[in-house]
Amino acid sequence: MAHIRLPEALPGIVGPLTFSPDTAKPLLELAEVLLRGPNTLTSAEREMIATYVSSRNDCTFCQLSHGAAAAEHLGGNYALIDRIKLNFETAPISPKLKALLAIAGKVQKGGKQVTPEDVARAREQGATDKEIHNSVLIAAAFSMYNRYVDGLATTQPGDPGAYREMGKMLAHEGYVRANRDRPVDAA
Amino acid sequence: MAHIRLPEALPGIVGPLTFSPDTAKPLLELAEVLLRGPNTLTSAEREMIATYVSSRNDCTFCQLSHGAAAAEHLGGNYALIDRIKLNFETAPISPKLKALLAIAGKVQKGGKQVTPEDVARAREQGATDKEIHNSVLIAAAFSMYNRYVDGLATTQPGDPGAYREMGKMLAHEGYVRANRDRPVDAA
Repeated sequence: MAHIRLPEALPGIVGPLTFSPDTAKPLLELAEVLLRGPNTLTSAEREMIATYVSSRNDCTFCQLSHGAAAAEHLGGNYALIDRIKLNFETAPISPKLKALLAIAGKVQKGGKQVTPEDVARAREQGATDKEIHNSVLIAAAFSMYNRYVDGLATTQPGDPGAYREMGKMLAHEGYVRANRDRPVDAA
Repeated sequence: MAHIRLPEALPGIVGPLTFSPDTAKPLLELAEVLLRGPNTLTSAEREMIATYVSSRNDCTFCQLSHGAAAAEHLGGNYALIDRIKLNFETAPISPKLKALLAIAGKVQKGGKQVTPEDVARAREQGATDKEIHNSVLIAAAFSMYNRYVDGLATTQPGDPGAYREMGKMLAHEGYVRANRDRPVDAA
């Protein structure tokens, strides 16, 4: 049971977003621009960073919903997402994405954990300042979203199929539109 | 030196906000609504929660700038902010604010650290669902802002006077207006 009285039957972050529309607006806009806005990192890569940080924070709802969004961007490759969560260094992804995931993993622990060597590794693999900035901010933002979801003890669907549906909606419709429509559907 | 090339001489979060205007917009709007929007918690109380979480995350820029904003809301009571950071349980603040700070301290460690007992304590001291929600989200959001500031190794002013000026601007002009004006001044 959630720590506060949230709208019934809305999973994970959707409950508090519906409870508090004034804060939902910038929270959803941030997710939209971070994960789906114009960028040299693909949405799949950005969702992988979000998923990895969420798994390190042990946030079930976020790692499964964003993992599903990443997989949907990749035509349904859920196995790759599992490999990244298990050990991204041995997963079949680019050396640049591995270096950015390493930075994200440091940010998850704390901002001061990121070293000049972590950043140098990313640069050597071709990462730009903007890509390093975005990786830090995605990791920081999911350190927020994960705490928002779990700090209120929100409802976590147990059915993996529910996350696949969410992943499709997030990958194809995005954060602002998907969440604007959802409370109406649930009402 | 910052990990990426940020605009010169802009302190703390102002560097990356100026570097990345598309993400700055929702980040500043979130701070504005969280800390200065209509609320039954005063802006001073909300800035105290932000300051406490930032001190637990060892983020110099955020704890000093938001501590100054809190103090400015209180007519310049910097001594109270120091006492809250040192041990809020013995500080001269309301039992309700102490209970909300205790929840915020749990969120800083991780969302799942918040217990039903933490929430019951806040309710017994008169906290509403909305106040509990806001305390969780402020703590979560500063777990993001702190990581954004330190994960990029941004410039941290050493002069305490600089933070007092920032505190006055944030307390009296707010987040969206203060940061919209600042890059122009610095250009």
